[in-house]
Amino acid sequence: MRVFLPDLPPFHALKLEGVTPVFYSRDSLPGGGADGFVLWFLPPAGRLELLNRPGLKWVLTLTAGIDHVLSELPEGVALYNAHTLHDKAVAQHALALMLSVGRGLYRSRDAQHGRHWSRAGQMHTLEGRRVTLWGYGHIGKLLEEMLRPLGAAVTGLTSRNAPQEVDAALTATDDLVLLLPRTPSTRHILNAQRLSLLPARAWVYNLGRGDLIDQAALNAALEAGHLGGAALDVTEPEPLPESSPLWARENVIITPHVGSTTDDLIVRGAARAGVVIRALQAGQQAPGRVDFGRGY
Amino acid sequence: MRVFLPDLPPFHALKLEGVTPVFYSRDSLPGGGADGFVLWFLPPAGRLELLNRPGLKWVLTLTAGIDHVLSELPEGVALYNAHTLHDKAVAQHALALMLSVGRGLYRSRDAQHGRHWSRAGQMHTLEGRRVTLWGYGHIGKLLEEMLRPLGAAVTGLTSRNAPQEVDAALTATDDLVLLLPRTPSTRHILNAQRLSLLPARAWVYNLGRGDLIDQAALNAALEAGHLGGAALDVTEPEPLPESSPLWARENVIITPHVGSTTDDLIVRGAARAGVVIRALQAGQQAPGRVDFGRGY
Repeated sequence: MRVFLPDLPPFHALKLEGVTPVFYSRDSLPGGGADGFVLWFLPPAGRLELLNRPGLKWVLTLTAGIDHVLSELPEGVALYNAHTLHDKAVAQHALALMLSVGRGLYRSRDAQHGRHWSRAGQMHTLEGRRVTLWGYGHIGKLLEEMLRPLGAAVTGLTSRNAPQEVDAALTATDDLVLLLPRTPSTRHILNAQRLSLLPARAWVYNLGRGDLIDQAALNAALEAGHLGGAALDVTEPEPLPESSPLWARENVIITPHVGSTTDDLIVRGAARAGVVIRALQAGQQAPGRVDFGRGY
Repeated sequence: MRVFLPDLPPFHALKLEGVTPVFYSRDSLPGGGADGFVLWFLPPAGRLELLNRPGLKWVLTLTAGIDHVLSELPEGVALYNAHTLHDKAVAQHALALMLSVGRGLYRSRDAQHGRHWSRAGQMHTLEGRRVTLWGYGHIGKLLEEMLRPLGAAVTGLTSRNAPQEVDAALTATDDLVLLLPRTPSTRHILNAQRLSLLPARAWVYNLGRGDLIDQAALNAALEAGHLGGAALDVTEPEPLPESSPLWARENVIITPHVGSTTDDLIVRGAARAGVVIRALQAGQQAPGRVDFGRGY
């Protein structure tokens, strides 16, 4: 079995019996076809080219989202996702942002640059805080488990909740955490109307995809002083353009789509690839097979 | 029973049968004596004056530390502490700082001011992180409970640990969290020698008292690049002087002694005072009586 692999040391180090590894990088694509393709750190043009090489039977994408691959995947090719590779880091990143807001860390950091010992501004803990997790899969459940000893009151929403249930949850939310994938039905799911349902001073956190939020509507709600603020790890587009008014708002926190990043991510990603490749090579089922009907 | 109370609305609202409340503020001290004194938000001069009024039998201090009162308390006066009033907020503040460091939130905040979508710098989660809680009372145990679902490996150290045990723990620490009270034996307990025992890239968190750390030694260790960084909610002195080199270090995070602050702190503090005053008025034992032998 020939497999396209990222040209990174932890992938070179994989022990894969009966497999011929063929390495690619953003600057150098190999020739010929392959049976499998482990996709990571490859810009769209290279991705599209390797996806259309002859003989491809399966793709494992180690990215957190899979929407970009789904739309380009040739017919008959199986798709595997990164499974739980990114989940723990994303859940901890969400918690980091929520606690950072509660404890005013973004304000004290700003004050630090002026050498100001400033105690101004609101402070809370997550105890008793009404947290709504919109997107309640593996990441959401990990986050809920982390929020439990902090005393937050957690509600999970999924695509199976009726619109009226979503609206009712939003009206009783202090912290709204978006963890949804990008699918045709999730674009701008947090729009002006739904933002208006949130109580004044509620915070919005986006760890899912930038286009879950109608960003112009978010900016308008912030401008009107309706929201407490927003913490965004994903934006529309990415990188967030320099001209965006969101950069300069005190009560907007931008992190550059690093929710799933850890220093050992590539080592962990290579290990995940090893598990999938060995299973497929042995003719067994591999974890993380994508059900095309659900889109994630 | 006459009781000195802070001149704040939640204390005026307390229902206390058989008690004559006498309100004070930093700008206005009442005349005469009292049986009890609920101490909060009063600078040293006013504190010293009220502590020495005739007839004083007990003091309830709602501050997080009690060292300043202990040293001034007239003989024969009982002292009660704030008990668990501050514990949850301090534990969540510590967790906020640890996650903020792991997820690089201080760096992305700095980059945000320059409108930079910057992914540079190390990132980790708390999974597998070796966390040493130096000071392992109620706050430490709350923090340990919060760290459990995040996968950290927690070690607690108390004043009962031998120096060799402390040193051994420090050599195997990624995140050192200081939660000790100020007592005669804790001053500069984290000195140059002990800082040198920490692995390179370890982070130090101080949620206890500023003088637990030899700040000049800390600055030298940071200057030498030995430490990953330091997050300080308490400093020596407070406020941290404008001239301190700590303000300007990227890998130092300063919060202005707000670990226990929440928007509802005064409401919660007044409720705590009510519990103690009613117990003492009824001739019963009240929670939080300070054992002078331990000093906290």
